[in-house]
Amino acid sequence: MDIAAIYHRPDSEMAYLREEDKFEIRLKVKHADIAQVELLYGDPYGQKVNEKDEGVWEHETVLMKRAFVTKAHDYFSADVKTPTNRLQYAFVITDTAGEKMLYDDRKLVPYTKEALNELTCFRMPYLHQIDRIDPPEWVKETVWYQIFPERFANGDQTNDPKGTLPWGSAEPTPENFFGGDLQGIIDHLDYLQELGINGLYLCPIFTAHSNHKYDTIDYFTIDPAFGDKKTFKQLVDKAHARGMKVMLDAVFNHLGDFSMQWQDVITHGRDSRFASWFHINEFPVSYTKTENDEFATDLTYEVFANTPHMPKLNTASREVQNYLHEIASYWIKQFDIDAWRLDVANEVDHHFWRHFYSLTHFLKKDFYVVGEVWHNAQSWLNQHEFDAAMNYPFTETLMDGLVSQKISLTDMASRLNEQLMWYRLPTDQVMLNSLDTHDTARLLTQCQGESELAKLALTALFLQIGSPCIYYGTEVGLDGGNDPLCRKCMPWEKEEQDQTMLVFMQKLIALRKKYHRLFSYGSYTFEEIDDVHKTFCLKRTLADKTLRAYFNLGATPQKLELTKEPLLANNWEQGHLQKNGLALVLE
Amino acid sequence: MDIAAIYHRPDSEMAYLREEDKFEIRLKVKHADIAQVELLYGDPYGQKVNEKDEGVWEHETVLMKRAFVTKAHDYFSADVKTPTNRLQYAFVITDTAGEKMLYDDRKLVPYTKEALNELTCFRMPYLHQIDRIDPPEWVKETVWYQIFPERFANGDQTNDPKGTLPWGSAEPTPENFFGGDLQGIIDHLDYLQELGINGLYLCPIFTAHSNHKYDTIDYFTIDPAFGDKKTFKQLVDKAHARGMKVMLDAVFNHLGDFSMQWQDVITHGRDSRFASWFHINEFPVSYTKTENDEFATDLTYEVFANTPHMPKLNTASREVQNYLHEIASYWIKQFDIDAWRLDVANEVDHHFWRHFYSLTHFLKKDFYVVGEVWHNAQSWLNQHEFDAAMNYPFTETLMDGLVSQKISLTDMASRLNEQLMWYRLPTDQVMLNSLDTHDTARLLTQCQGESELAKLALTALFLQIGSPCIYYGTEVGLDGGNDPLCRKCMPWEKEEQDQTMLVFMQKLIALRKKYHRLFSYGSYTFEEIDDVHKTFCLKRTLADKTLRAYFNLGATPQKLELTKEPLLANNWEQGHLQKNGLALVLE
Repeated sequence: MDIAAIYHRPDSEMAYLREEDKFEIRLKVKHADIAQVELLYGDPYGQKVNEKDEGVWEHETVLMKRAFVTKAHDYFSADVKTPTNRLQYAFVITDTAGEKMLYDDRKLVPYTKEALNELTCFRMPYLHQIDRIDPPEWVKETVWYQIFPERFANGDQTNDPKGTLPWGSAEPTPENFFGGDLQGIIDHLDYLQELGINGLYLCPIFTAHSNHKYDTIDYFTIDPAFGDKKTFKQLVDKAHARGMKVMLDAVFNHLGDFSMQWQDVITHGRDSRFASWFHINEFPVSYTKTENDEFATDLTYEVFANTPHMPKLNTASREVQNYLHEIASYWIKQFDIDAWRLDVANEVDHHFWRHFYSLTHFLKKDFYVVGEVWHNAQSWLNQHEFDAAMNYPFTETLMDGLVSQKISLTDMASRLNEQLMWYRLPTDQVMLNSLDTHDTARLLTQCQGESELAKLALTALFLQIGSPCIYYGTEVGLDGGNDPLCRKCMPWEKEEQDQTMLVFMQKLIALRKKYHRLFSYGSYTFEEIDDVHKTFCLKRTLADKTLRAYFNLGATPQKLELTKEPLLANNWEQGHLQKNGLALVLE
Repeated sequence: MDIAAIYHRPDSEMAYLREEDKFEIRLKVKHADIAQVELLYGDPYGQKVNEKDEGVWEHETVLMKRAFVTKAHDYFSADVKTPTNRLQYAFVITDTAGEKMLYDDRKLVPYTKEALNELTCFRMPYLHQIDRIDPPEWVKETVWYQIFPERFANGDQTNDPKGTLPWGSAEPTPENFFGGDLQGIIDHLDYLQELGINGLYLCPIFTAHSNHKYDTIDYFTIDPAFGDKKTFKQLVDKAHARGMKVMLDAVFNHLGDFSMQWQDVITHGRDSRFASWFHINEFPVSYTKTENDEFATDLTYEVFANTPHMPKLNTASREVQNYLHEIASYWIKQFDIDAWRLDVANEVDHHFWRHFYSLTHFLKKDFYVVGEVWHNAQSWLNQHEFDAAMNYPFTETLMDGLVSQKISLTDMASRLNEQLMWYRLPTDQVMLNSLDTHDTARLLTQCQGESELAKLALTALFLQIGSPCIYYGTEVGLDGGNDPLCRKCMPWEKEEQDQTMLVFMQKLIALRKKYHRLFSYGSYTFEEIDDVHKTFCLKRTLADKTLRAYFNLGATPQKLELTKEPLLANNWEQGHLQKNGLALVLE
């Protein structure tokens, strides 16, 4: 038995209250090393007190199931209920050669009666609902649509900024403007509803100089080029009337340098009453301009990345905390938004986010908070800081496996499984999963224009545990390289839109929404991965329903005998899955 | 290479800000499998923007050291500083056969130039002092003395409860009283100072019926049999004047059933305004009395363990939160106590403790909070909930290795090392380490009366990373079996005291205090473990000082050639360590 590979972490994603009265317990072991894991569990105070000295502990035993598999590890899992609100547990592990070990809070030793009498269990001392990670249910049914407001639609030409270019008349640059605004979004809510969207995720809409608005000047006003609060209220109300949720982008890591607060620091230096709002190493604040306006090496203050225009906020300051918390509350209380997406969330302190979570969820019980974290986000998601993170590790893994094909399908499946095991299932279910955003090259471009491959990747996205999000224009085949090229104007003329893609996306979205319980709660298994022919099947099962999704990335047609008409298929001809083909069968 | 055994968890005890500007990064691997680990690290935004597309990342490389070793694992560690406040890192791992792997946030793959170009580092996105686990420095210099007030000394016979027995005239029972009180402690502060004690940890002192006072009636009054607030103020002030800290015991998991609040629930049932203060499953609250007064099986309300007399508080209730937080504040603000020890802390919710921590540390910056947790306490210590836990896993391991000798010395060393790796070093340094308490049989009794073995175990305790605590009377050879026998009256007559033990303890305490930096900050290594002859050496090194502590638990005298006079020794004769012998040498 590979003892060194066996791992469990109590009171974490490996042992947690999953439902009101049900725990999930997980154990990580070396792949293919272990034949069986039994979980012993019961109430820590369950022994009869009179028999205490004899060490009798009343417990149940359940066989754990091999739930997730990676190249290196198998993850065993069991769901358990306790008759009381308390739980302690230990593992009895038998390897493929028959060796049997006992694993508890103190030790991993050969399984003997003596060892069993010396049991010192892992503990979940008391089942506290207040500590349970329980993100909003609605997110599991949501299909998100990310909008970069300056480029989605121009609904009101009277608010166009000076120098606005005709819609779609030029390639996007870091500086140009095309007039997109909130009215443009309102005007296309019917379109989005027809597409099936029920969650709008808007990039920043508050007053700022740039076209991307990440350099906030004033969080309490809508950027005048996007509209005003009346328009925004209309947008939220009309979206809600259609059953769509609205998520805004909160840029709380830094301010824009044109903000009143930073301007005051520039003017008054250390005497500014905002001096403590930032991380300033030396007064006066300064830097040397270079050719690249977003890059400086000799800043006397801390910033986002290396850009002088985004001075970092000191979130350890009570004043800054109060200010940002007021903003967070304002847009919930006055406009009834449903979610905040937190920009550069990983660079803001945990204290701040814990308070932020309490506040937002106090104001609106089923509020949704998503942090931008590009890496493993365990330390934010293991407690109440965010409900979810933008799932970039997932994005990268799926894209590397299916699109760039930098990694094998086996590696892709292994990493997807491993990443799911980073978090509790309730967190996995609401992770914000996307394939591209305003920060990356667009999916179609990454697919080198192959829209059939894009469809395959999007289908794979929609079958995951996690809330899928598409970037505006994806549904009509919009392309574009890295920022700023991924921020093109949405094409609204039918002839500029890929109608086949649009129809496909409508079907895919409808399917996701119809079977959202299967996708959120169903088991998740890769089958029949063939790295040579580049085919695989993803199986999702819930109760008596099983969905099998077959994919063929290779040039060789794959013969498939389907027992039923597929729910959704593409490049599926005469019993064969062609290149970039897919077929989803529900049984 | 045993890939499956390799483990790292970002932003946890395995990657954290250890000092203001220094990170510690740890990596767990299979024991004796890995020859070398290099840590690549740098600023995530450190690449020159113009070279971004070429993927050039400016980083440093440092060789990690094998810092802690268990039977199953080696833990590599490195301390790193970054020039900026941001850090990302990855590992290059070479096994004993020369195989080289790259381990980052996404993958563990063969080390190639290609893999290095695809590096996706682990991240510590921003160094926030507010998130740093930084327990009070004074705890590292403290030697604690735990007092069970009813049994330490009777300083005021006027407050003796009815039926008080003459001091030490009977064995302790769950019901009897001997008149110990706060004046008794004040009267013996000189004694404690002479012993070297600089931290007093008092079991509960608030009004309650029992002799142990864990069944609190009123947290705002001192139990009348113990004295009053004036006496308590004197005690704290006099202790402080001697440089002694004072820690009180906070029983916040449950109330006593004689408390006004629970009595109100008994009287008014669901109409009681305190009904929501508890976890009540059915009204009226009831249970069937059994022979064992502390045990009931048909309770209609939740309790501590199975005792009807300790109804569990509902800490998710705002009113309860406010009530308990007021208590916590009151004794800090009015009496200037230095620490709270939290009873049954593991059964109270995390939300409550997070708030509790903020509050207490806001009131007194270097306040110390210790939770009673009998198992792995990672989920409480990985963030700001407690500064430390009562280190029962440590207690059990040391006692099993040295006293009952149930486990081998090799196993003991392995477990001690593993348990140190559960937490960040700053947490390890302030863990409350004891060998016995009011809840266990006394050390001497566990040693079956062998005081030489008790001395050996106490010496091992004092050499650890962590704050040592002795239970009143240990220093004079007080014995006693399990509760209630471990709560005997302190013998104050010289002829009833083991004077040899007292002198030994004075020396040991003085040594601990003199070299507290070595014990807190020094490296920690077991050497020359011999399970057959039952000998081992614990080596502690800081800068140019090395302390070697030699122990012999076996019957065979162990020949030792010491280059220097030992700092402390016992059963050390003519160059030989006799049975239960110890010798501490500083070089």
